[in-house]
Amino acid sequence: MTSSDAPLGVFDSGLGGLTVVHALSQALPGEHIVYLGDTARVPYGTRSAETVVRYARGCAKVLTARGVKALVIACNTVSAVALEILRAELDLPVIGVVEPGALAAVEVAEAEAKRRGVPVKIGVLGTQGTILSGAYPRAVSQISTRVEVVGQAAPLLVPLVEEGWLEGEVPELAVQRYLEPLMAQGAGVIVLGCTHYPLLAPVIAHVARALTGERVPIVDSAVATAREVARLIAEGRIAPAGPSDAPRLEVLVTDRPRSFADVASRFLGERAPGVEQIDLA
Amino acid sequence: MTSSDAPLGVFDSGLGGLTVVHALSQALPGEHIVYLGDTARVPYGTRSAETVVRYARGCAKVLTARGVKALVIACNTVSAVALEILRAELDLPVIGVVEPGALAAVEVAEAEAKRRGVPVKIGVLGTQGTILSGAYPRAVSQISTRVEVVGQAAPLLVPLVEEGWLEGEVPELAVQRYLEPLMAQGAGVIVLGCTHYPLLAPVIAHVARALTGERVPIVDSAVATAREVARLIAEGRIAPAGPSDAPRLEVLVTDRPRSFADVASRFLGERAPGVEQIDLA
Repeated sequence: MTSSDAPLGVFDSGLGGLTVVHALSQALPGEHIVYLGDTARVPYGTRSAETVVRYARGCAKVLTARGVKALVIACNTVSAVALEILRAELDLPVIGVVEPGALAAVEVAEAEAKRRGVPVKIGVLGTQGTILSGAYPRAVSQISTRVEVVGQAAPLLVPLVEEGWLEGEVPELAVQRYLEPLMAQGAGVIVLGCTHYPLLAPVIAHVARALTGERVPIVDSAVATAREVARLIAEGRIAPAGPSDAPRLEVLVTDRPRSFADVASRFLGERAPGVEQIDLA
Repeated sequence: MTSSDAPLGVFDSGLGGLTVVHALSQALPGEHIVYLGDTARVPYGTRSAETVVRYARGCAKVLTARGVKALVIACNTVSAVALEILRAELDLPVIGVVEPGALAAVEVAEAEAKRRGVPVKIGVLGTQGTILSGAYPRAVSQISTRVEVVGQAAPLLVPLVEEGWLEGEVPELAVQRYLEPLMAQGAGVIVLGCTHYPLLAPVIAHVARALTGERVPIVDSAVATAREVARLIAEGRIAPAGPSDAPRLEVLVTDRPRSFADVASRFLGERAPGVEQIDLA
């Protein structure tokens, strides 16, 4: 297939989607990426589906105008309520985080079930919007009719991550409150159904182990999504980057470009790139 | 003065400003009120001043188009960064929550100082936007040059209130983490510098007492603001409501009108009124 130096477009309500950028640059180190974080209207997870669709269309418009070759929706809430709409409206591959996350979760749940000798449910932690949408149960049911899904909205986890409270009593108690009902319903695999949550993965793993007495596997949909994009490139459905120059990461935000650098290093685990502010209104 | 059946216009980023509506309807039971909550773009407290000013202008435009006789900014962040701009641009009385809150805090701090025989500092809890703006120290310095102000951004308290976690370990630990530095700097009065915080007042009072060993007075700027509006009406600078019909409360939101009723009863302490969804974009 002909190569293309057009970037992959990635967007999220805020900066959480940088965990997807990080996973993409690990899986596909040669690809250019342009990332848009709608920091003037973050968070999306508590908004109505109609409003999320409207905001998502605005983000997609900015990235298609920059000539991206594929669009990665690095936001569970948008993936849950607007993926099909964007796919129908746009003439390029659109990849959400829910389907890859669901696929990875089913694989892990089936492996766990085999190991334990009993069925294992998938427990999804997500925003209110993601959980209410039923997107994970729907995606899982299209992959396997045997694996059950239980969900729990965890609205405090995004503010905890944005505040940088990633360890200690407050995040542990909050995570415990959200995990208890999931584990009580028989969850044996936990899906991090929001791009902010990977930063709380150590706390989530620790609390899950304390609640159940055993190690509970955790599925990070950011990693699963990067794997899906790599697969589409390998199959020739997205043109790969040429061998030409060094990979570029461009970052656009709709508010607070200066505070971007502080947060970005937390999400990207590397030196943050430059950032440009744009207006979506 | 001639009476006017035009409503008082009140706006906030979300539903927290309903604590101001509640205080207004207690202080001025005959007044009509139209409230606008910008729930499609809440929260404002983490956004840049430029973005907050832009959003505030949009809210003010909707309310002036509805013929309000005065505009009450029931949002500390907007009051902190956009009050002077709205006052300059609008041809009606504009009341923020910071100046009344600062005035009440100075009165309480001076009474405490007299009682204790030592100077007492004002400790302000607020959003990042409010604390970074320096609006409370500025407002206090215009009232008294003797009273010092210390501030603490408390970003987790708004999500806690919106989640309805108003008691127990998580809010107590979060409040403790924010109050410790304030009390260590000598705060002897606490200003609730965000319209969400009155719902956490019992926890804040309890933690402040545990940290200092004595009762720490708490100033609620919602109540102080209602008192200020009542004063402006008594002085004839805002026309009072006529004796005609029963007071009306109209509520406008920019997203999730259905979830309004759940939250509103928490803030208003009474049966929630009907609600209308409008578009600011």
